[in-house]
Parts: sequence; structure tokens; C-alpha cells
Amino acid sequence: MYATFNAVVTALRDKVGSPYDTIPTEMAYYGEGGMEGWSSLCGTLNGSSLAINLCSDKATTSALVNELIGWYTQTALPSDTANQFAAQSEYLDNKMTKKLASSVSDSTLCHVSVTKCCLASGYASGSPERAERCARLAGDVASKAVELLTASANGTFKAVYGPLAEASCTSCHTIGKDYKAGNFTRGKGDCTECHGDNPHAGS
Amino acid sequence: MYATFNAVVTALRDKVGSPYDTIPTEMAYYGEGGMEGWSSLCGTLNGSSLAINLCSDKATTSALVNELIGWYTQTALPSDTANQFAAQSEYLDNKMTKKLASSVSDSTLCHVSVTKCCLASGYASGSPERAERCARLAGDVASKAVELLTASANGTFKAVYGPLAEASCTSCHTIGKDYKAGNFTRGKGDCTECHGDNPHAGS
Repeated sequence: MYATFNAVVTALRDKVGSPYDTIPTEMAYYGEGGMEGWSSLCGTLNGSSLAINLCSDKATTSALVNELIGWYTQTALPSDTANQFAAQSEYLDNKMTKKLASSVSDSTLCHVSVTKCCLASGYASGSPERAERCARLAGDVASKAVELLTASANGTFKAVYGPLAEASCTSCHTIGKDYKAGNFTRGKGDCTECHGDNPHAGS
Repeated sequence: MYATFNAVVTALRDKVGSPYDTIPTEMAYYGEGGMEGWSSLCGTLNGSSLAINLCSDKATTSALVNELIGWYTQTALPSDTANQFAAQSEYLDNKMTKKLASSVSDSTLCHVSVTKCCLASGYASGSPERAERCARLAGDVASKAVELLTASANGTFKAVYGPLAEASCTSCHTIGKDYKAGNFTRGKGDCTECHGDNPHAGS
């Protein structure tokens, strides 16, 4: 979380100055490892969204964060660009030059993202390569946040990514007023990620 | 997210003043509904943790946020106190006086928390009662965050709650360096919430 929040706010501080020079970016430490290692919300999304919100009104924040999450969950990360940066030692703290396997998370969660990274790469979750993969991913997500903010400022932003939730599920299981029809939940995430391919089996 | 972040920071602003009067609490709008309705991390946890981090060093933040999450996931919410506040019209904006059913989420996620609330109460996810339940829960979580901060400041903080993850799972499936032993994931959440009671069946 700190990595992406600090990246965007530091750039704003350097380019714009006040009021961004009053924001202590260390306030985003808590989101590391999906909330202090609970592996909940990926910290790269939490930090980038906080930065987007810091310099956007409510409606713009909603649109850009929605887009960022949609992109994040449906894109193979780390990107080729991130791997190329590392190969060419272009990061400020370039710890590793080798190419790392990319994977699509289909989820907002650190837990799912890390597992899919490990399964795609064969690296253990406590390996330096997995940590480096998350660092490259943080660069990707911060970069995407800045791209979205820039497009919004230029009036060229258009939403591309939608929710992951299957329409066949959300036609009943969505936020709504009819409990008996299945309106007893909410969300935009991939339903089958946790509920399996046939969640009604046995019911 | 805004509800809990604003509650704690406003209190700090009123009691302490600078530097808390420089923090625009509207920066926490994005966490509503588990990240703009994605139903990921519960916004009450995100906002309270951001507030804890804002006025704590890194080690203290880690300890208090861990405790807040452990408590949140294992406590029936909204609390009796929250229901009593509503019954006595003690909230600044007291929208509803009736008692609302409490439920234990066993999860950090908005999606799971809202579903368990609906199943426990019979109210639909888009009902005014479900919205009111989340508002009362925000009061509970902000209050707990302040309780933890106060205990920490007084030197009386002791961790009570641990992770939810089953030891029988995390003896293999944890953050670590041995991929073949099962170290291809991370997290402290309840494993069986998504993986079922017998996740090795068929493997």
C-alpha cells in the first residue's frame, strides 16, 4: 500500500507542491500484505486508490477506482514493461533483473493474487522472487493510477473494464430489496473463485 | 471507510488540533462498500486502520491493526451497545431505533459480512436496515480503534485476538520458502470460508 501511495503522492509533491507536501505517506503502512499480512485487499490497489481519492472529487474517484480494480483483476501482472525495467536495471532500487512470470488474479485479494503468482511461477510465497513480483506489480498499479488520473484531467478518460461477477449469478445475487429473490449479498468480484462452478449443487 | 476514518480524525482534530486539522478525511471515500462496491475489504476496517496508522509508528500500527481485525472478524456486530444507542436516539443522525440482528463475519470482507448479516436478519442487502446495520457497525469499529489507541498510549495494550486461519492448514499453507511443502500462499483468514471443510478432497 505504501509503495503505490508514496509513489503517486511523491510525484504530486514534486510537481505540484502544496497541499501534497502536508500528507505523511507513511500513513499507508498498514495495508502491507493485504492488511498487516491478513492477505485481504491487495495493498497496491488500496494505496493507489487512496492517492486517486486524495486528488479527485467523489464521482471521479468512483469512476477511476472502479476502472483501476477492473484492470488489475483482468490483466497479467507484472507487465512486460515492468520486467523490462528490471532487466535494464531502471528501478531506483533494482534488486533483481530476471524476468518473472505474469498471472491474472481475477480477484482484488492479496491471498488469491499471491497464490496465482506462486502457481504460475513455481516460486514459494516467502521467496525473494515473489516479493520482487509484488514490487514490480506495485509499479504497474501506481503507473496505471497515474495514467487514469492524467486521462481524467485531460477529459479523455473512458471506462473499459467492468465487474468480474457473472451475470448469471448477479441477476439474482446482487444488492437489492428482494431477499427471497436472492438479494442477500453484494459485490463485483468473480463469484466462482470462491463458490465453485456449480454453487447451487446440492441446494 | 469514510465513516470510521472521519470519526477518529475529527476527534483528534477537536482534541489535539495540528497536524490532524490538515488531513482531508474525504480522501477515504473510495473504500465504501469494500472499494467502490466491489465488496472487498470492509470499509470500516480500512478507515479505522488508516486512522490508527496516521497517529502511530509502524510497529504500533501493526499490532493494533492486527488486533482490530482479529476482534472484528470474531465479534458479533453490531454490538448491544450500538443497538442501545440507536434505541435511545443517541446517534447524531439517528435514522432507525429498532434492534438489528448481530452476526459474526469470520472474514475481513464486505461481501461475507453483508451476506452473513442478511442471512442472520432476513433483510435484503439493499434494504435500509442493512445500511443502518453497517452504519452501527462503523460506530463499533471506530470505537474499538479508539479503545486500542488509548490502551496503547497508556501502555496497557495487550493482544487478545489471533488469526482465523486453521493451524492444520497453515502448518503447510503459509508464507514460506518451501513451495513443495505447500508454501504457495499467505494470509490469516479463515481457510474453510472459501475452501470448504475438506479442501484436499479429490486431490
